[in-house]
Amino acid sequence: MNINMIIYVLGWVLKLEAGLMLLPMLCALAYKEIWAFNSLAISAIIALIIGMIATIKKPRKTAYYVREGFVICALSWVVMSLIGAIPFYISGTIPSYIDAVFEIVSGFTTTGASILNEVEHLGKGLLFWRSFSHWVGGMGVLVLVLTILPLGGGYNMMIMKAESPGPDVSKMVPRVADTAKALYKIYFFMTVGWIIIFFISGMDIFDALCIAFGAAGTGGFAVRNSGMEDYGMFCQFLITIAMIMYGINFNVYYMIQKRKFKDALGCEEARVYLGIITVSTLFIAFNILKMYGGNLIYTLHHSFFTVASLITTTGFSTLDFNTWPQSSQMVILFLMFSGACAGSTGGGIKVSRLLILIKEVGKELLVLVHPEAIRHIRLEGKKIEHNVVRSVNCYLIMYIIIFMISLFIISFDKFDFVTNFSAVSATFNNIGPGLGAVGPISNYSEYSYISKIVLTIDMLAGRLEILPMMMLLLPRTWRRTY
Amino acid sequence: MNINMIIYVLGWVLKLEAGLMLLPMLCALAYKEIWAFNSLAISAIIALIIGMIATIKKPRKTAYYVREGFVICALSWVVMSLIGAIPFYISGTIPSYIDAVFEIVSGFTTTGASILNEVEHLGKGLLFWRSFSHWVGGMGVLVLVLTILPLGGGYNMMIMKAESPGPDVSKMVPRVADTAKALYKIYFFMTVGWIIIFFISGMDIFDALCIAFGAAGTGGFAVRNSGMEDYGMFCQFLITIAMIMYGINFNVYYMIQKRKFKDALGCEEARVYLGIITVSTLFIAFNILKMYGGNLIYTLHHSFFTVASLITTTGFSTLDFNTWPQSSQMVILFLMFSGACAGSTGGGIKVSRLLILIKEVGKELLVLVHPEAIRHIRLEGKKIEHNVVRSVNCYLIMYIIIFMISLFIISFDKFDFVTNFSAVSATFNNIGPGLGAVGPISNYSEYSYISKIVLTIDMLAGRLEILPMMMLLLPRTWRRTY
Repeated sequence: MNINMIIYVLGWVLKLEAGLMLLPMLCALAYKEIWAFNSLAISAIIALIIGMIATIKKPRKTAYYVREGFVICALSWVVMSLIGAIPFYISGTIPSYIDAVFEIVSGFTTTGASILNEVEHLGKGLLFWRSFSHWVGGMGVLVLVLTILPLGGGYNMMIMKAESPGPDVSKMVPRVADTAKALYKIYFFMTVGWIIIFFISGMDIFDALCIAFGAAGTGGFAVRNSGMEDYGMFCQFLITIAMIMYGINFNVYYMIQKRKFKDALGCEEARVYLGIITVSTLFIAFNILKMYGGNLIYTLHHSFFTVASLITTTGFSTLDFNTWPQSSQMVILFLMFSGACAGSTGGGIKVSRLLILIKEVGKELLVLVHPEAIRHIRLEGKKIEHNVVRSVNCYLIMYIIIFMISLFIISFDKFDFVTNFSAVSATFNNIGPGLGAVGPISNYSEYSYISKIVLTIDMLAGRLEILPMMMLLLPRTWRRTY
Repeated sequence: MNINMIIYVLGWVLKLEAGLMLLPMLCALAYKEIWAFNSLAISAIIALIIGMIATIKKPRKTAYYVREGFVICALSWVVMSLIGAIPFYISGTIPSYIDAVFEIVSGFTTTGASILNEVEHLGKGLLFWRSFSHWVGGMGVLVLVLTILPLGGGYNMMIMKAESPGPDVSKMVPRVADTAKALYKIYFFMTVGWIIIFFISGMDIFDALCIAFGAAGTGGFAVRNSGMEDYGMFCQFLITIAMIMYGINFNVYYMIQKRKFKDALGCEEARVYLGIITVSTLFIAFNILKMYGGNLIYTLHHSFFTVASLITTTGFSTLDFNTWPQSSQMVILFLMFSGACAGSTGGGIKVSRLLILIKEVGKELLVLVHPEAIRHIRLEGKKIEHNVVRSVNCYLIMYIIIFMISLFIISFDKFDFVTNFSAVSATFNNIGPGLGAVGPISNYSEYSYISKIVLTIDMLAGRLEILPMMMLLLPRTWRRTY
C-alpha cells in the first residue's frame, strides 16, 4: 500500500476544498453575515494547513494500483466531509457534529437528505456552502484534482473508475486528465447556462445559483423552508428539464460537442432513460388525476417534476407523494432504485446496469431454449465483456447486502418499516426524501446518532458505488504483504 | 416442441392425482362426510378420465430437451392445481373457483397462505386433502411420476432439475429414477415417523397426520381455527424439530442412510442453515423478552418455533410476530427470503444460493486487492462451475423483477406497503403468513381476484424456482422453428 501517495493526494483534496470555500465566504460577505464568514474562513484555514503539511514532499513512487485507487477515493470523500462539516458546527447552526457531517455528506454525495427542520435558519452563506457541495460532489472531487494535478502514470484511470458512477467508464479521449477536463468543461458551462436561465425566468440570483448547483449535482437541498413551492410553474418546469438533462450520460454531450449527432441520438441508455420518464409521468398523472379534481395539466406538471426529480435522484419536491395511491408510490419506489444514466451526476443503480442485468437474463433464457446459441450481451451496440457483467452482478449482491444490514441497524429506532425502508433507499440511492416519516415534508432529524452514522455511510457507499467503501473496510486491503 | 410427449406426461400426472385423492376420500368416509366424499370422488373421476385419454398412446419419440422439461414441469403444476381445486369448489365450501385454485396452489407449493377465515368450516375430508397437498407438493409430483414411469433416455434429469429446489441437483445415484426413489423413501419414512411421534405426544390422529404432512412439505396449513395454540408446548417443540429437519438438504439423510456420517456432518449448507437458526432464535428471544414479562423460557420457545417455521418457509405460527419490535421483524424478513437448504422441501432463495452469492462477492473483492489471484468459488468443498454461478445470478435478477412486477400489480388494491410487500414475500417464498394485514392472524381473502391470480402465479414461480414458469410464458418457447 503506497501510504505516502495516499496522504499526498488527500492533502491536495483538502487544499482544493479550502479554495472551494472561498465562494461561500464571498456570499457570506455579500449578505453581511460575518459569523458565517468567520466559521467558513476558520474551516478553510484548517483545511489549508493540513493540506499543506500533507503535500510538503511529493512521494518518490507515484504509481498506484487498484486498491490504492479505491482507498484514495473513499478516504478523500470521508476527509472532505469531516472538514466540510466544520462551518455548520462552529457557527452553532447545527449543534451536533454528527448531524453536521450527515448534512455535508448529504451535500457532497448529492443526496439532499437533511436533518434541518428550517433551512433558512442557516443563513445565506452556509446555505450557499450546502448547495455548492452538491455541485462539487456531482462530478466528483478527485476528477477535479486529476485535472489540475497530473500525477503521471496511466494509473489515474483507477481513481476515475472508482469515483465515476456507472458500470464502466468509456474513455472518451485517450488521456484520463483530458477526459476529466472535457467532462468538467461541459459540467461548468451547463451550470452557468442554467444559472442564467433560472435568473431570467424570475428567480433571485441567490436561489438561481443554489438551485442550479442542486440540479447540476442532482442533489435536493432546497434553500427555502417552503421547498419548491415559491417558484412558479414555469420555473418548476425549467428545473424539471435541467434535472433530466443532468441525468443523461455526459458522453452524449461530449458527442454533441464533437458534432457526432447521430451517435448522441443513438445512445441506448439515454433512450431507455427518457422512455422510463415518459411512461412513469403519464401513469402517475392519470393515477392521481382524481385526487386533484381532474386537472390533467396540473397532475402532468407535478408528476413530470416528481418523476424527473426521483429518477435523477435529485430529490426536489413540489407535492407530498406520500398521499398518492399505492400504485403511484410503487412507480416512485422503482424510480428511486433505477436511478439515472451512468456517467451522469445522478445516483441509484443506473439504467445501464439494469439493462445489463435484464439482457443477462434474456441471454440465459435464450440459451435454455436454443442450447446451441452462443450470444453476447450488447449495450450501445458494443459487446459487453464478461468481467463487466460479473462486476455488475457483484454490485447487485453487495447492494442488497448493504441495504439489508443498514435496514437492520436502523430498525432499532422507533420508526415503522416503510420509513426505515425508504430512509435506506433514499440515502443509499442519493435521493433525499423517502416515504413515511422521512417523506418530502419531513426530515431525518428524529433518527438516533447510530442510525445517522449508518445512513451517512450509506450515502457515501451509494455515491461511490459501494466498492471503494468496501475496500476501505476490508482488513485485507491494509495488509502489508502483497 | 414434443407436444405428444408433454400431453402424455401430463396425463400420467392427472392419473396419479386421481389416485392420491383416494386418501382424503377415505378420511371423508371415516368422518361420515358424504358430501366431501362425493366432491372428491367426482374430481378424481374427472382427473382419471382426462388422464386416460391423454395417455391412450405412448408417443413414439420419448426424448425431450431442456425446454420441454421446463414446460412439462410448469404445466403439470398448473393442471394439477386446476383439478385439485375442484373439490373445494363443487362442495361449495369455497364458492369462488379462483379462491379454490389459490388455496390448492398454496397447498401444492407448500405455501400455506389461505383465503379462509375459518378453516374448520371445510370439514375433515377436505382439510385432509388440503394438508395432504403439502406433502405431495413438498417432494414434487414429477419426481414421483418419474419413479413409477421410467420414460427412458437420460433426459429425465431435465425434469428433475426443473422441479427440485436449489441451484443444482447433485446426482446422488447415477440413474435419475433411482435418485427419485431414494429421496421418496427417505421422505416417506420420515413422515411416518413424525406421524407416530406426534400421535404419541398427545395429538389426535387426524391432527398428527395433517401437521406431519404440513411439516414434511414445509407448508403451513393449520387444521384448527386457533392455529397451533391448541397443541401444548411439548408438541410445538416437536413440530419445531420436525420443521428444521425437513429444511435440511436431503442429501444429508441419504448419506446418513449410507453410513457416511462424516460427509453428512460436514455439509456446509446445513451448518450455515443451523447457524442462522441459532443466532436468529437467540436474537429474537432477547429482543422480545421485555414484551413477555422477562420469561426467557417462553420467549426462547416461541422464538425458536417462529424462526424454524419461517426459515423453512413452513408458516405455522404460535404468536403474532406483527406485534414484535421492528428489529425482530427485520430478522424475520431476512429468514423469509433466505429460506432453507437446497434439496429440501423448503422454499425461499435457499441458503446455498446465498452462500454462492456471498462467495462470489468475496472472490471479486479478493481479485481487486490481489489482481494476480485466480480463485474459484467452492461450496461443500467442490469447485462451483461458472455456469452455476451465472444461473444463480440470473435467478437473483429474475427474482427481483418478478417481485417488483407483482408488487406493482397488487398495489392497485387497498392495502398498505407493508402488507403488499410481505404478501408477495410470503407467497413468492412459499411461506404463507406475512406482516401487516396478511399476518399470522389474518388471511388473503380481502385481496381482489387479479391480485389473487398474481399471488397464485408467484407461489408457483417460487416453488418451481422461476425458470419453468418463465419458459412457459416465453413466446419463443412455443415457436415451431428449432
